[in-house]
Amino acid sequence: MRKIQELTRSTTQQNRRRNDDEATVYHGGDLAAARRLFPSAPEPWIDLSTGINPEPYPFPALPLEAFSRLPEPGQLADLEAAAARRYGAPPSAEIVAAPGTQALIQLLPRLHKAKSVGILGFTYGEYARVWREIGLAPQAVETLEALSAFDLAIIVNPNNPDGRLTRAEDLSALAHHLARKGGLLVVDEAFMDLLPENHSLVPILPEQGALVLRSFGKTYGLPGIRLGFAVTNTTLGERLRHLLGPWAVSGPAIEIGCAALADALWLKAMAARLKRRAAIIDAAMTLCGAKIIGATPLFQLFIHATAENLFQRFGREGVLLRRFPARPDWLRVGLVGAAFEDRFLSIAERISKAA
Amino acid sequence: MRKIQELTRSTTQQNRRRNDDEATVYHGGDLAAARRLFPSAPEPWIDLSTGINPEPYPFPALPLEAFSRLPEPGQLADLEAAAARRYGAPPSAEIVAAPGTQALIQLLPRLHKAKSVGILGFTYGEYARVWREIGLAPQAVETLEALSAFDLAIIVNPNNPDGRLTRAEDLSALAHHLARKGGLLVVDEAFMDLLPENHSLVPILPEQGALVLRSFGKTYGLPGIRLGFAVTNTTLGERLRHLLGPWAVSGPAIEIGCAALADALWLKAMAARLKRRAAIIDAAMTLCGAKIIGATPLFQLFIHATAENLFQRFGREGVLLRRFPARPDWLRVGLVGAAFEDRFLSIAERISKAA
Repeated sequence: MRKIQELTRSTTQQNRRRNDDEATVYHGGDLAAARRLFPSAPEPWIDLSTGINPEPYPFPALPLEAFSRLPEPGQLADLEAAAARRYGAPPSAEIVAAPGTQALIQLLPRLHKAKSVGILGFTYGEYARVWREIGLAPQAVETLEALSAFDLAIIVNPNNPDGRLTRAEDLSALAHHLARKGGLLVVDEAFMDLLPENHSLVPILPEQGALVLRSFGKTYGLPGIRLGFAVTNTTLGERLRHLLGPWAVSGPAIEIGCAALADALWLKAMAARLKRRAAIIDAAMTLCGAKIIGATPLFQLFIHATAENLFQRFGREGVLLRRFPARPDWLRVGLVGAAFEDRFLSIAERISKAA
Repeated sequence: MRKIQELTRSTTQQNRRRNDDEATVYHGGDLAAARRLFPSAPEPWIDLSTGINPEPYPFPALPLEAFSRLPEPGQLADLEAAAARRYGAPPSAEIVAAPGTQALIQLLPRLHKAKSVGILGFTYGEYARVWREIGLAPQAVETLEALSAFDLAIIVNPNNPDGRLTRAEDLSALAHHLARKGGLLVVDEAFMDLLPENHSLVPILPEQGALVLRSFGKTYGLPGIRLGFAVTNTTLGERLRHLLGPWAVSGPAIEIGCAALADALWLKAMAARLKRRAAIIDAAMTLCGAKIIGATPLFQLFIHATAENLFQRFGREGVLLRRFPARPDWLRVGLVGAAFEDRFLSIAERISKAA
């Protein structure tokens, strides 16, 4: 077991190092930092550093009331009902909307007073950060079995950045084991939406010891509205509601979420479209000598002997990839929108020829 | 001194009593609950139960990027700079944006580990609630002097619902006193925007022991976007940032906030307009036999021997007022938008004649 803090950098440190572009680019999506790092890169930037669908859900025009009135309890209940249907939650489950999954991650240390926290593998750094901030050092473990020793276990499924998938039945068994000793399993299904439903823990959610996080913005290409959900039992769900307080989710997020989550047809068509988009990235990165070592429908992970060099070359051309300070030979690459496909492919070809 | 819990009902209880409309209407703004209470009332409802400007800031069309990208650190910094200018914050102050003032209120018990909490007078119920949820019973006191005995003191200024104003110099002195013993003064200036700047603690913010909350949505008539600010020193500001985590504020809120907070002309013109709107409410309620006992630019507080009766009469006509279970002879009345002015005045006239 290795301490997670050796593997990731905290946001705290990033904020303190605002002038250190190496650090600020780490989270992905920060084009201002990318511009400081590559001041001569052509505009507009092609941002492949995130795991966000580049083709946003075409949401209908928003009524003024979504902005001019406080969201009402009934509207929030409608949104949560739409999410419950979309994610296949059993009737016994409680689903709680929040202003982004990150807001829920921030609350985890208050939701469950764990004395020990285990995290499966190299993963999204924010989990380790929120526990460190209350003085608890989470441990990274390599196997699902090793997680059963902790009070609170965290799995990102499919994992970010390597796409590792854990079977829902195995997660259910782990949750039952943890529940027997008063523990809790947290499963982050941020990148689950476009996979077959039987991969998700939500439809078979155990009544005790499990909390699943679902992100709205990534799949629907609308992370700016800040919307995410927790699916858990009534006790933990009520506790989350009290920690969030009233009016946590904005009016625009409620309007857009209700429309998008009910649109099963769009989601199905998008899953097929994104497969083609992923193939474009795979082909281009392979051309540049990188090898795919993992994937979710929204990003792919590549390994390359001189990954940093490749990051720099793409950066100078105005293409932002995602690198990992603790994994210098890895590059995570999101999907390119149709509007930038030709330009991205020309850049990749140019880089491959210069290699 | 009386315990605050005797004076207010908690949101928790309200949620448990979803079917008890007496309780759900309490927070104001819940038209669904109003419709259950007055099923025969004509539509659309005229909602005077909130302290929200009925004439929203005419924000420009939002770019798709506000929805389709994660907000970048630089955009958040621009928003906070605009707020600092608008509120007249000194250069030493740290200003932290959040998804609504309520989100900041939720974090107060984690920001400052107080052993005793004092709240000035009968006021907004959410302060007492968040402390009760960690097992600490705040005390309501009647004078500013009495607040100096606590670790953490809370003042809503101007106060909601009675408009009581406390001098900024007196607040500064209290903050200095509390700072000397490691305490903290929290000043909620949710209804301060339209008053002269010398009423605010922000321009003379003490370097220690003070935290001011400012609400965006009320004055700008856009509470649905969820935006509020804390103005405090660097130490507490950094702690708040860690508690909020990254991407706490939505893209639409950042866009709208940047435009509105920089528009000093709109705010000045609005202050004059709202004075006329308040005069309309005052005249109508006086006609109905109510007497004004307090006010801020966004609402007025009235006393009436049979206030509940008046609440019911307006309710049956589709006009929602704000009542207070602990103050049965009080009614708080917000401002009526231009579109509903004539209808509201006819209703008030009808009610006054039937009395």
